[in-house]
Amino acid sequence: MAISTLIDQTIAGITPLDEISMDAARSRQDTLTKPLGSLGRLEALSIQLAGIFANPIPEIRRKCVMIAAGDHGVVAEGVSAYPQAVTPQMVLNFLSGGAAINVLARHVSSEIVVIDAGVAADLEPHPLLTSEKIGKGTNNFAVGPAMTNQQAIQCLEVGIKAATREIGLGTDLIACGEMGIGNTTSSSAITAVITGSDPNVTTGRGTGLEDEGLANKVDVIRRAIKLNNADPSNGLDVLTKLGGFEIGVLSGIMLGAAANHKPVLVDGFISGAAALIAWRLSPLVVNYFISAHRSVEPGHSVGLESMGISPILTMDMRLGEGTGAALAMPIVEAAVKCLSQMATFAQAGVSERNEDDDEVSN
Amino acid sequence: MAISTLIDQTIAGITPLDEISMDAARSRQDTLTKPLGSLGRLEALSIQLAGIFANPIPEIRRKCVMIAAGDHGVVAEGVSAYPQAVTPQMVLNFLSGGAAINVLARHVSSEIVVIDAGVAADLEPHPLLTSEKIGKGTNNFAVGPAMTNQQAIQCLEVGIKAATREIGLGTDLIACGEMGIGNTTSSSAITAVITGSDPNVTTGRGTGLEDEGLANKVDVIRRAIKLNNADPSNGLDVLTKLGGFEIGVLSGIMLGAAANHKPVLVDGFISGAAALIAWRLSPLVVNYFISAHRSVEPGHSVGLESMGISPILTMDMRLGEGTGAALAMPIVEAAVKCLSQMATFAQAGVSERNEDDDEVSN
Repeated sequence: MAISTLIDQTIAGITPLDEISMDAARSRQDTLTKPLGSLGRLEALSIQLAGIFANPIPEIRRKCVMIAAGDHGVVAEGVSAYPQAVTPQMVLNFLSGGAAINVLARHVSSEIVVIDAGVAADLEPHPLLTSEKIGKGTNNFAVGPAMTNQQAIQCLEVGIKAATREIGLGTDLIACGEMGIGNTTSSSAITAVITGSDPNVTTGRGTGLEDEGLANKVDVIRRAIKLNNADPSNGLDVLTKLGGFEIGVLSGIMLGAAANHKPVLVDGFISGAAALIAWRLSPLVVNYFISAHRSVEPGHSVGLESMGISPILTMDMRLGEGTGAALAMPIVEAAVKCLSQMATFAQAGVSERNEDDDEVSN
Repeated sequence: MAISTLIDQTIAGITPLDEISMDAARSRQDTLTKPLGSLGRLEALSIQLAGIFANPIPEIRRKCVMIAAGDHGVVAEGVSAYPQAVTPQMVLNFLSGGAAINVLARHVSSEIVVIDAGVAADLEPHPLLTSEKIGKGTNNFAVGPAMTNQQAIQCLEVGIKAATREIGLGTDLIACGEMGIGNTTSSSAITAVITGSDPNVTTGRGTGLEDEGLANKVDVIRRAIKLNNADPSNGLDVLTKLGGFEIGVLSGIMLGAAANHKPVLVDGFISGAAALIAWRLSPLVVNYFISAHRSVEPGHSVGLESMGISPILTMDMRLGEGTGAALAMPIVEAAVKCLSQMATFAQAGVSERNEDDDEVSN
């Protein structure tokens, strides 16, 4: 199905991982001074990264947290514990360096880019802010589609271009993040539709709903899914009917990164929903994902499981902004550095395992 | 029970965490620009660290991975997939910078100290190596106690002094690590005795035993436990009869760090066994522990559970050396930095949650 030239070309550019580089990385791991396989997921990560970069000894030089922000018409249904005004307020907090993601990005020496994908307020220009406002918040998807098909295409294109631009600046590792009051509601709806799950299991308390608020949120999502009747196999249709501008931009960033052979650290629940949309558009994109952490939001695990990926960190976090992804950046770098910098048994003059394993137990 | 003046004084110096600082940190967390509790374990860690440092806004300036190495007489029973010569070879690898722990310590900007607690070979002097050889490997505990009571005391004293020296240099965060062919066997025995578990559930494949080797290892441990009849409530007795020199030194490091009000990142299974011994000597020491990762070795979880602590990372690692602890260092630092550097709602002009929660769902 043709979508747009840019999107179609991007999807066509997403290839399987490079098996030759992966084999070489795997072989090298087995010569390094450690018991076979003893670095566990660090080894698996290094092999995946070798495949992504098509380089048996990959390197990560520049990192960037890409945060997309947008508002959600569905907040009219009382689905969030915080007022919509918090979206632009938090964007300003990102720009002035006071949010959790700023602290973490500084800590891990990562760049930050903030994309206004559709905040329902006018934002002053700022060097860290890319203005790509697709609309001033989505429509309330409890009463109709969240956006037009053309807007959904625009989201993806904005994301693809943003990723390509960052990669052009030398970025080797992109972390996804977002801000948008109401976006756990959109993510729960997306996750329910794409994974074929009941909204009951994909919906959580977001920023902190009480029991009654949670029940209402599930009810709103259930009604919206029925009303909009999105095609679960069609990522663009799901984005159009139940998505958010920032979620679509994240999906685009993921596709853009993969087409440029760069890994994407997928943050928590909202990024996970964006990943599901990207995955429906290109099944191969999942090979370029590194799931950073397991969010407290129950729908997150449902989405990850359907894509067959499992997170690095379990920190009981549920903040978004890319905080989990930033926290996982040093671990991804560690994986790459162990592969490239460790001595081999031969180099270090370390004995390998006893030749006859069976004799060891005698 | 008096052990030695240094050990007794150290244990007496381990106090409960400072509640006033913890309360202040907890209150500050709730003013920072994020939904309440949304940083999950990062918040919990920051509060624990406030209590450890007795400082509501703690800081980590210098970090050190302290690696203790020692050999084990029990290797005579064929319990390891690697020859004993690997212990000194890997110590030399640490000193020349080629091991996984070197790569990771450089990556996280941590110092490294290597302590020869009892390697069964002569090691040349080296600036990174502290020579504290208590013996050239322990005795085979399948036929008698691993060491004398006096040697066990010496292990603890060496560790206490080493931690105190490092902290004197400005270290705020110590990560424990070890090297010693045969030391998963010692750790399985220690864990079984202290937690009252069957060796079947505390014993794993170590560096890579096959099924037959694993069965032999369990059998050796079962016999050794019966023969030595250590008192499970007496950490010194367990160390004497079933321990290792490097394990005792790690227990001492943990006690020394806690007495100096510094946190200890406990690495994997062997460090966990050392933690169990320290915990038997001082129940309060557990408050100073941060469990870095969950080792693949099954006994590790058994030990952690009995101390009531749970690990930060699950990376399917089983290398030791302090690799899991080093990998967790940036996460501990992230916890501290979020507490100290994030803007408050008031500073950032961000709205707090809707006042009447119950109305949100209407």
